[in-house]
This record gives sequence, structure tokens and C-alpha cells, in this order.
Amino acid sequence: MFNLYWADERGLPAGDRGCAYGDGLFETIRMQGSRGVLMSRHLNRMAGDAGRLGIPMTVAELRKACSAAADHFAGRFSNAGGCGAWVLKLTLTRGEGGRGYRPGSGVRPNLLVAASSMPAVPPVKGVEADLSRVPLTVNPLFSGIKSLNRLEQVMAAREIEEGVFEAIMADADGNLVEGTRTNLLVKAPDGWATPPTKSLAVAGVLRQWLLERLRARGETVVERPLSVQDLTGPGCSGVYLMNSVLGIVSVRRLADQDLPVDDGLATIFNPLELLE
Amino acid sequence: MFNLYWADERGLPAGDRGCAYGDGLFETIRMQGSRGVLMSRHLNRMAGDAGRLGIPMTVAELRKACSAAADHFAGRFSNAGGCGAWVLKLTLTRGEGGRGYRPGSGVRPNLLVAASSMPAVPPVKGVEADLSRVPLTVNPLFSGIKSLNRLEQVMAAREIEEGVFEAIMADADGNLVEGTRTNLLVKAPDGWATPPTKSLAVAGVLRQWLLERLRARGETVVERPLSVQDLTGPGCSGVYLMNSVLGIVSVRRLADQDLPVDDGLATIFNPLELLE
Repeated sequence: MFNLYWADERGLPAGDRGCAYGDGLFETIRMQGSRGVLMSRHLNRMAGDAGRLGIPMTVAELRKACSAAADHFAGRFSNAGGCGAWVLKLTLTRGEGGRGYRPGSGVRPNLLVAASSMPAVPPVKGVEADLSRVPLTVNPLFSGIKSLNRLEQVMAAREIEEGVFEAIMADADGNLVEGTRTNLLVKAPDGWATPPTKSLAVAGVLRQWLLERLRARGETVVERPLSVQDLTGPGCSGVYLMNSVLGIVSVRRLADQDLPVDDGLATIFNPLELLE
Repeated sequence: MFNLYWADERGLPAGDRGCAYGDGLFETIRMQGSRGVLMSRHLNRMAGDAGRLGIPMTVAELRKACSAAADHFAGRFSNAGGCGAWVLKLTLTRGEGGRGYRPGSGVRPNLLVAASSMPAVPPVKGVEADLSRVPLTVNPLFSGIKSLNRLEQVMAAREIEEGVFEAIMADADGNLVEGTRTNLLVKAPDGWATPPTKSLAVAGVLRQWLLERLRARGETVVERPLSVQDLTGPGCSGVYLMNSVLGIVSVRRLADQDLPVDDGLATIFNPLELLE
């Protein structure tokens, strides 16, 4: 059981714990009419991570909400971009009530449902990225969860210069972990390399899909810490950033250094094939 | 310039960045009618930390909002507790708008103003505390800021058992840093000891006031990492938790071990003397 809020009608109540403490999580889903790209992965992640936070929510409830959302926002995006593409955002909070940080018993979650138009997709020829000066700190208890505690990403995103697509953030040891809104994959001498899942602030559904797809093709995928040298050194033959809304994009320039662009991943992700 | 929201009338708008990302900060002030305990310290901290986050807000604007809040909520608490005590909560967010994590230019902050009744003050004979299993991770960029990214404190507070006042959280190295809603001070062989200000998730105004007061009395105050042994070992002659709403309280029992209770700090903080 949860309370549903349509973002075009009202915001969350003043006492909502999501607003007060970031006590919740969210998903952003690329939609085509009433179908979503990698929809099951999105909903499984949200329900699973809600469980890690102690917020009761089932995949079936979320699926029903997405279906209602497609009806609610129908027409608004039917002609946009020529193919009815839009972005569905689900924000799930623990709800209202409790004594300060401590939630009350029997708090009912709030689900805020919003729609927006598709952002511009990054150019096929690749993008420029920078190294963020904002350190990324990941509490192991919340690793991978797309929680509402995103101040680090906000501060890193504020510093991205005009024309630069993304800022890649490093942990306290200097290992590169992810972009503000994208996960990171590198074509390294030892195979496709990506930071370990448990080191991630947000474990993206497209990253997980891609790792499985590469492994299914028989390619070598390693999860290991990535240094700046792993991206800018001579061993690297491709750097990629990805999320399920924008897709997979090559980084052709990082921190004022040109990188080799390998378009091997350019066609592996076709959102239209992954609609559910 | 900011938008004012009275929490008893409406919540923040659906697109508010505080709700979306915890992109903001808050203050909780113990009030007596229209005057607040350590009010200047609260407002200076909020305006200063808003500046660190790039949210424009002045002390003068906050002071005006507090004055308006006292008028707005007047009468509601005039008879409560016999002396008009209440708690004022200011939640300041970056406002609405922007492209994902990246704020738009010229975003106008939102200030949500709420009132609640005074919570029960902890008993003079001291309280029981526990060691939290939730690790505390503090991004150095945000150290001390009472931001809206408080999921760690929520998860730690959820685990506090009935009858236990507080859970003390440790960093990745096992050093005790602070409670979920209180700062920590220990009477150690080398003087009054408290974790370094830059290690804190929230640098409380009462803690800062108290350190200054102790130093002004000629007592030795050291900022250094505190181990569990520093609190439970034979060298410790008193453990204290504090915040500006609840005051200063002795910890008489920690993780099922009795601690010496020293009431030397019991009278140093008199909220009625610190009303502004």
C-alpha cells in the first residue's frame, strides 16, 4: 500500500521524509508510449533497493503504477519526437511521520510519478568528459542504490563546463567510479573493465544489461578498480559512459586529452529492442 | 530572494530539488515565543553552509523568515508546556529546475518553514546509548553541513531499540564520530575530547558553543579521533551527547556497559539564558 502523487497535480506533503532526509529512492525510465526500456530491470531494482532501505514496495505495485502513468500522461508525448518517446520518473519515499530521523511504525510510502520529454541523445561521434573534483563517498550499506541522497552528484554536475557531457568522479583512493549520471566501462588489455558493482554509488540497469550481454557473447568482462591511467594510458582502446535513458556513448576526449574511439559498442544497445 | 512555504499550508513543489536529490539543508531551532536558543549561531551556520552548496541566502533573510514564523505560528504553542516552547524547522532547498542533477542558472531557493512541539527532554540521571552498525561516511566537501542527505542517520535511527536514547556512529576506521542527532564529548585524561570538526557529518551549534565556553573557563579541550576504548575504558570519566533542542545529556550506559556519570556539565547549558 502506498500513496500516489502525480507530479503535474501536486508535490509530496510538507512532512514527507524524502524531502526532509532524502529518505527514499528513484528510477528514471525511457518510455515509448506505455512500454519502457529495460522496464523489468528498473522495477526489480527499485523494489529490491526499497527493501534494503526497509521501504515496503513490490514489483507488481510498481508495474501497476507505471501502467497508470502511461494512461495519465498519454497524449502529452504522443507526438513528441515523432515516436512517442518520453521519460518516466518514479520517486519512492518512506512517507510521512516519525520522530526526527526515526521513522514511525506503519508509515505508508509515497510514490511521486513524473513525466518529462526525452533529453537530447549524445552525438555518435562521442563526447568530451572531465574528471570531477568532487570526491565520491559510497556508504557500503547503500552501494548501488539510486537513493535521494545525491548532493555529491549535484555538486559535481554544477562544475561541468559548457559543451562537456559528463564529469567522472573518483573515490578517496583516486579510483574512477562513475559519472554523475552514467556508469563507466573501459576497453582494457585484460578485457572490458568496469569498477566493481559494490563500489558504485548507482548501479545502473544498462550497465548490468551490457555486462551480461558482453559475457553472453564470450567476451571477457572484469570488475576492478580503474585508475586515471587505465583510461588515459596507452593500454586503453575505448572509454564508454552509459545510462538507460541516454544509451552508451564513447568518450573521445577526457580532461583535455584525446582518447581512441572504438565504435564497437555503438550498436549493441538498441532501446527499441528492449521495450517491455 | 526565495520562495517561502509554510508547512501547515503546503509542501514543496513536485519539482523541488530538495525532494529530488536532497539538494538543500535544514536547521532545527528551540524557540520560546519569538526568540530562539543560540539563534545567531543557527542562522549563521545555515547561511554559511548554504553558501558552501552554492545556494544564495543571507542571515538577514533568514532572520526575517524566523520573525515571520513566530507570528505565523503564534498562539499555536503559546500555552504548550506552560512557557511557549516550540521547535522551528527551516528547510532550505536550491529550488526548482535544471537538467537532472545540474541546477539551472538563476534557480530561486525554496524555504519550507515548519513548527512542532518540544520533544521530551532526556532525564537528568543520564541516558543509555548504543553503538550503531551503520557506518558514517562523510564527504569532506560537505563535512559539518546539516544537509538533506541524511539516509545514514535514518537507517541508524531505525535500529535504536526502545528505551535507548541514541546510537553513536563510527567512521570506516572505527572512530566514533557522533550520534544520529547529537554530537559527542568525552571527559578524557587529556581533557575534554571531541571528534575533529572536519570529521563530523553535522557540526552542531551547541557543541561549538560548549567548546568555546569550556575553553573560556580555562579548561583543556582537544579535538581528536575517539575510539570505543576512549569511551568505555578506565580513562573516561564522562560521556556526553548534545544538541541545541535537547541540551546536554550524560551517557550512563553504552552498549550494555555502565559508564561513570559526571554531572559537571549538567548546569552549564541553560537554554533560557541563550535566547535571542
